[in-house]
Amino acid sequence: MSDAVLVIGGGPAGMEAARSVADLGSRVVMVEKRDRLGGTPDEAGYAALTPSFESAEEALDRMRAGVVDRPEVTLHLGSTVVEASGEAGSFSVTLQNAKGERVTEEVGAVILATGFQHFDPGRETQMYGYYEHEDVITLVDAEKMLKAHEFVRPSTGEKPRNVAFIQCVGSRDRRIGNEYCSKVCCGISSKQAIEVRRLVPDAKVYIFYIDMRMYGYWENQIYWPAQEEYNVNYIRGIVTEVVKKGDRLLMKGEDTTMGRPMEVLMDVIVLAVGMEPSLGTRSIASIFGVPQNKYGFIEVPGEPMDAVTTGVSGIYVAGAAAGPKDLEDTVSMAGAAAVKAVGLLRAKAKGAA
Amino acid sequence: MSDAVLVIGGGPAGMEAARSVADLGSRVVMVEKRDRLGGTPDEAGYAALTPSFESAEEALDRMRAGVVDRPEVTLHLGSTVVEASGEAGSFSVTLQNAKGERVTEEVGAVILATGFQHFDPGRETQMYGYYEHEDVITLVDAEKMLKAHEFVRPSTGEKPRNVAFIQCVGSRDRRIGNEYCSKVCCGISSKQAIEVRRLVPDAKVYIFYIDMRMYGYWENQIYWPAQEEYNVNYIRGIVTEVVKKGDRLLMKGEDTTMGRPMEVLMDVIVLAVGMEPSLGTRSIASIFGVPQNKYGFIEVPGEPMDAVTTGVSGIYVAGAAAGPKDLEDTVSMAGAAAVKAVGLLRAKAKGAA
Repeated sequence: MSDAVLVIGGGPAGMEAARSVADLGSRVVMVEKRDRLGGTPDEAGYAALTPSFESAEEALDRMRAGVVDRPEVTLHLGSTVVEASGEAGSFSVTLQNAKGERVTEEVGAVILATGFQHFDPGRETQMYGYYEHEDVITLVDAEKMLKAHEFVRPSTGEKPRNVAFIQCVGSRDRRIGNEYCSKVCCGISSKQAIEVRRLVPDAKVYIFYIDMRMYGYWENQIYWPAQEEYNVNYIRGIVTEVVKKGDRLLMKGEDTTMGRPMEVLMDVIVLAVGMEPSLGTRSIASIFGVPQNKYGFIEVPGEPMDAVTTGVSGIYVAGAAAGPKDLEDTVSMAGAAAVKAVGLLRAKAKGAA
Repeated sequence: MSDAVLVIGGGPAGMEAARSVADLGSRVVMVEKRDRLGGTPDEAGYAALTPSFESAEEALDRMRAGVVDRPEVTLHLGSTVVEASGEAGSFSVTLQNAKGERVTEEVGAVILATGFQHFDPGRETQMYGYYEHEDVITLVDAEKMLKAHEFVRPSTGEKPRNVAFIQCVGSRDRRIGNEYCSKVCCGISSKQAIEVRRLVPDAKVYIFYIDMRMYGYWENQIYWPAQEEYNVNYIRGIVTEVVKKGDRLLMKGEDTTMGRPMEVLMDVIVLAVGMEPSLGTRSIASIFGVPQNKYGFIEVPGEPMDAVTTGVSGIYVAGAAAGPKDLEDTVSMAGAAAVKAVGLLRAKAKGAA
């Protein structure tokens, strides 16, 4: 029996889970494949958080401070899990770093925090000309520009006059196998639309959507200000094609509110790509034999009354490894997973005593 | 200094928070104003959970089992908090029961789980004729019928031919002061629409909505089946008026997808009422001096990276006391709040030692 909790993944979910377990007085073994903590928000260079507009870097620094240099936390950076065996209370897990060095850790419980990856809009089809046209970008590309406090046409470096966001790219789409909604893209697009309007006040910004999913306070914190203060134009419509016209992009489709075909010239088109399980999530599920749902995310059989317990006893999940989650979901799940993991160790220790 | 956590409210948030604190080995003092645990889902008689369709009663029984008859938990049913003083680490809280008997408990941290109340559609205006027409009901009224495995016209007791759900009643509405989206009503309406179609296969069921907010897996778990398996008709539209015509209800408005006025006869109209802070939430905020947002919900300044810490040190919040939350949010927040509360007690104990 071990009194440690293994946390796999060093993004927001993993950092919050590790800090929580340590705050509860238990030992944490943390594994992160990259050489630094931060996960996707760090790797992809997120600028401002949705919906608070807080600097992502500052928020991540705060989270890092909760886990590094703590006596309770053993941190394995640049490492991945390559083997696992055992059961709730006593797992034996082998980690390997980039040099091929292996170390085995004994842990009593596991928290999977291996996250998501952004949908690749060129993966199966040349969706909206992502690989053909330089000025067709994704939310991730846009976020990088916003972090540098600029927003330009990639092909010319000039400020754009017309910018369009296309929602549900890789989400709500049976053809590509992702029927689910990715939950965060409406909010992130609207946040970016506000930032584009701040940086390029002369630009017209359009968001083409099926349903504008701004749940809870996102409605009053982002959606209303986007329309009323920043004059972002929300158009309920379907975009069917993006073609080059001169040096600009012609977006064809249908305005479903007006019930008429639509052809508009754009300078930059931002594809609101959704979430898919990361390679790490798929791989860790297979190493631990944890059931995945049909999309490859970790299955959570007890939902909605339990958002973190997987199909394997002693193994819990936090964040977008379990499906589309926003940051608030992620940090709350991390706390809930820490309770389950530490609670299990306590129960096992009692049983053994 | 006290080593106990006070949990206020015995609904899903409170029960999960209390169980979590107890699982972590700390003492819990739990207060619930009603004579039994279960909160709003119990009081309002919820039938099946969204999106799992699990029996709410069974789910609540499971939660109750996690807190009753546990040595760590002191349960005060039929009681409310009437006075509080002190600070993080040592609060002194006076409880009073229905007989007027008072007891004072010393606790180190507090978790507010005082929840929400359903918007009253007759509160400020005679919205959609809720008080005028017997066959205009709310999601709560509908849920009660579904729990009894029936769905009838209240005025006649007969099975309805046409049933309409109207979304965003008391939400996304500046006129009544609730700009936020209540997050769960699209899902609950769709779940109920499926149940109505199961119970009354001849009925036509319509959902009139602004945006269909089925985030994450609700999209594939409820929204697609509602349309494809149960032929629920989703109509993007605005309902402006409900008037009596003969013994039926004439619903007037605009179909915004077709861009035309709409007049449809209905037998039952279900108003998808949103969430407002409960009286308990408003009262407890005032007793503890916890800042509320402009809607009266408990303010959480660290969102989205911390969903449970209030503006007062040592006081945390779980569930819909902090705003519109679904059950998954609620149970995860409860775990996260338990981590913060127990973590605080540990830190205080260390500091004192």
